[in-house]
Amino acid sequence: MATATPIKASPEQIASVRFNADGLVAAIVQEQGTGAVLMMAWMTPETLQMTLTEGRTVFWSRSRREVWRKGDTSGDRQFVREAYVDCDGDTLLFVVEQEGRGACHTGARTCFFQAFGPPAAEPGASS
Amino acid sequence: MATATPIKASPEQIASVRFNADGLVAAIVQEQGTGAVLMMAWMTPETLQMTLTEGRTVFWSRSRREVWRKGDTSGDRQFVREAYVDCDGDTLLFVVEQEGRGACHTGARTCFFQAFGPPAAEPGASS
Repeated sequence: MATATPIKASPEQIASVRFNADGLVAAIVQEQGTGAVLMMAWMTPETLQMTLTEGRTVFWSRSRREVWRKGDTSGDRQFVREAYVDCDGDTLLFVVEQEGRGACHTGARTCFFQAFGPPAAEPGASS
Repeated sequence: MATATPIKASPEQIASVRFNADGLVAAIVQEQGTGAVLMMAWMTPETLQMTLTEGRTVFWSRSRREVWRKGDTSGDRQFVREAYVDCDGDTLLFVVEQEGRGACHTGARTCFFQAFGPPAAEPGASS
């Protein structure tokens, strides 16, 4: 059973995040161990703080315009193990322990299951 | 010496990509082999087509408002080995062979070298 571990970010680390004109920052989610990129979604200052404090990913749903605590409905929760901000502060990376079937609402493990080009490579995790 | 290999995407695959109000789509870049998430940048329909045709990542620089063929200045080119579009078409994932020092303009291998929380874990690639 996965457990949530809060991440104690400093005020300086939080302040280094640059939100866009809509008040959002892009958040990439990567699976611990496999390294598979699972999804990309958006966070507000509030949901970033919730993510760090709760140790689970919490996003802002742009379509529903509401806080979206990943897995509350589907059961497919994401427990944060590492969190990063990029060099210019406008993209976040969360390394997570993915619970349940996976990250995608389609039931796929990763949202990136559609490859460009003729069908060949195994979709999902990198080689 | 890395060589560029074009990706023959179908018209249907290209048409599945949804560009935002600014005409851009988010593009995550992941390193082949290590699985490290290197960077996130933006593409226009034109630079996506260039990326697939040339087999190298080509972005749109929002700050400079120009086509940005990654590595033309720095020498740190990215050769595309796999390309994916996510379930709802608004995020791309490119698995690349990274040339030179790395992806970040700071000289770091990945742009995600700043971790939230007290200094501890090795920054960069997932475990």
